[in-house]
Amino acid sequence: MTARVLFAAAEADWPRYRRHLESGFQAAGLDIDLTPHAADRPETVDYLIYAPGGTVSELGPFRGLRLVQSLWAGVETILNDPALTAPLARMVDPGMIQGMAEYVTGHVLRYHLHTDRLDRTDPGDWRKDLLAPLAATRRVGVLGAGVLGTAAVRMLAGIGFDVAAWSRTPKQIEGVRCHFGPDGLRTVLRSSQILVLMLPQTPATANLINRNTLALLPPGAAIINPSRGQLIDDDALLEALESGQVSGATLDVFRTEPLPASHPYWTRPNVFVTPHIAAETHPETASRVAVENIRRGERGEPYLHLVDRARGY
Amino acid sequence: MTARVLFAAAEADWPRYRRHLESGFQAAGLDIDLTPHAADRPETVDYLIYAPGGTVSELGPFRGLRLVQSLWAGVETILNDPALTAPLARMVDPGMIQGMAEYVTGHVLRYHLHTDRLDRTDPGDWRKDLLAPLAATRRVGVLGAGVLGTAAVRMLAGIGFDVAAWSRTPKQIEGVRCHFGPDGLRTVLRSSQILVLMLPQTPATANLINRNTLALLPPGAAIINPSRGQLIDDDALLEALESGQVSGATLDVFRTEPLPASHPYWTRPNVFVTPHIAAETHPETASRVAVENIRRGERGEPYLHLVDRARGY
Repeated sequence: MTARVLFAAAEADWPRYRRHLESGFQAAGLDIDLTPHAADRPETVDYLIYAPGGTVSELGPFRGLRLVQSLWAGVETILNDPALTAPLARMVDPGMIQGMAEYVTGHVLRYHLHTDRLDRTDPGDWRKDLLAPLAATRRVGVLGAGVLGTAAVRMLAGIGFDVAAWSRTPKQIEGVRCHFGPDGLRTVLRSSQILVLMLPQTPATANLINRNTLALLPPGAAIINPSRGQLIDDDALLEALESGQVSGATLDVFRTEPLPASHPYWTRPNVFVTPHIAAETHPETASRVAVENIRRGERGEPYLHLVDRARGY
Repeated sequence: MTARVLFAAAEADWPRYRRHLESGFQAAGLDIDLTPHAADRPETVDYLIYAPGGTVSELGPFRGLRLVQSLWAGVETILNDPALTAPLARMVDPGMIQGMAEYVTGHVLRYHLHTDRLDRTDPGDWRKDLLAPLAATRRVGVLGAGVLGTAAVRMLAGIGFDVAAWSRTPKQIEGVRCHFGPDGLRTVLRSSQILVLMLPQTPATANLINRNTLALLPPGAAIINPSRGQLIDDDALLEALESGQVSGATLDVFRTEPLPASHPYWTRPNVFVTPHIAAETHPETASRVAVENIRRGERGEPYLHLVDRARGY
C-alpha cells in the first residue's frame, strides 16, 4: 500500500529536498506518495517531514500520523504543541554535525590564538606577547555530550586541546575527561578557559549559564554558544563581560532571532555575533535520515533518534 | 673525555634552556661542559647550540666544531656565513611543529568560516549568506611537505578539508593529494581556495608567489604565510589584494621584521598581520633534540636533521 508523506517546512525548502527524498525513497524500494501540499486530506498523511514556521501550522487535523520527522536538531517548539501525539524524531544530520564541529573548532582556535587581539593591534605594534601556548595546555570545556557535542569534542581533542566534557548522565569519550551531574558541572566550569555550550533547550538547561555558574569559570574565560539562546541568562553574561570575568563570547543563537539591532550584544567589542549559522541541516544528508526513518516505519523496525518527551530532547 | 658545548643564542634564552639542557645531558649519561660564555677558548668548543643575532657573531674562531645545532627551523642566515665549515643541523622541534599546525588550522578555519566578514557586519545585519559550506568542499593547498608542512596538512585533513600538498620532490601523505615539480605546483595553485606557504627560504623559493603564480589561483583565494617573507613578491601580492584576485592574506613573516609601521600590509583591511608568532621553538622540546644530536656526535652515530647545503635546507 502506498504511504503518504507530507513535506511541511518552509516553501523554499521543498525544491532543495524534493529530489533527494524522491531518489531516496526509490533506492529504498518504498512505495511513497510525497507531496508538499498541506491542505490535501490531512487525516490520510502517514509521515510528516516537518520544520516549525513552515506550510503546516496546526497538527490537529493530522490524525493518522505514524511519525513526525523533524528537520531540525532542536525540537522544543514542536514539543510544546499539544496537538502532537505521534512519535517525534529529531534530525541527526551528519552534515549538520560536521558543520557544527567546524564552527566550534574555528572559534575555539580564534580565542586560543588571540586572533581578535592581533586583529586590533596598531600599525607597527609588534606584540610578541600574543604568542599562543600549545593547545595541549589550553583547557576547553564542552557542556553536552550528545552527537553534536561529541563530534566537537573529538575534533578539538584531535587538534590537541585539553578537553573536558560534561553531560547530564555518565558518558565516555576516548581520550577526554568526562564528567556528569551537578558536581561534574562545577568541575568542568572551574577548569574551562574556553567554554562551549552544546546542549539542547529543555527546562533543565534554561539559564544554565547564570551569575552562579559564570562565577565558577577561571577569570577571563571565553564562551561559545551555538546551541540555543535560552541556555544563557543574558543580563548575567553582559555583567560578566563588563567585569572581565568573561573576556569574550561568541554567540550564534539568541532568545529573539534575528537578534534585534538594539541588543547590546551587537556593539560590545568582546561579543562576536553570528546569525544562527553554526550549523544547518543539509538537504542531501538529512534526506537520507528521513528516508531511513520512514523505511523503518514501513518495515515495522524501531525509529532512529526518537525524542524522549520526559527529558525534552 | 669532556665535550665542550657552547650555548650561543640571545642572552635571554640561556635561563630558558639551561636546566633542560643540563638535565638532558645528565639523563643521556654524557660528560658535558655546558657554557654560555662565547669568548672562552673558542677553538676548544666541540658543539655550538646556535641562533643568529645572539652572543656569537663570528664563527671563524670556532675551528674545532663537530656540529652546529641551530635553534631555528630556518637556517638561511647561518648558511650564508662563509665561516661555517662544520655540519649544520636544523631545529625540528615537536613543540614548534604542533604550534605551527595550530596557527595554520586556526587561520584556514578563519577564512573557511567567513570570520572576518561576520566580524564586520552592522548591528541587526543578519547575514545568513555567510553560512560556511562543509570543509570537505573547501580546497586548501599547502606548498611544502617537510615536517612542518606535513603536520599542518594532517591537521587540516583531520578536520575534513579537501587538502592538496605540493613539494619539490615526490612525497606521499595518506589521504591527501600530493603533487610535485613545476607542473604539480600549477595544479595545486589552480585548485587552492586557501593557499598555505610552508616552505624554507632558498634561492629556489624566493618570490615563488609572484604575479604569474598569483594569477593561477581561483579568483578570491586567500593566502597564509607563516614561513618566510622572501617567498612572496610583496608588490605582486598587494596588486592582487587590490584587484580582488586575492581576497585576504594572513602574514606572519616579512622581509623586514618587525614590519615597519609605514608598510601597507598594516593598513589593508584584507591583510591580517601577525608578529612572527606562528611558531616558536619551545625550550623543553628543542633541548631534547639538541641533546640527542650531541649524544649522536659523542657516540659516532649519524646526526638528525642535517642541512643539505646544495638545496639550502
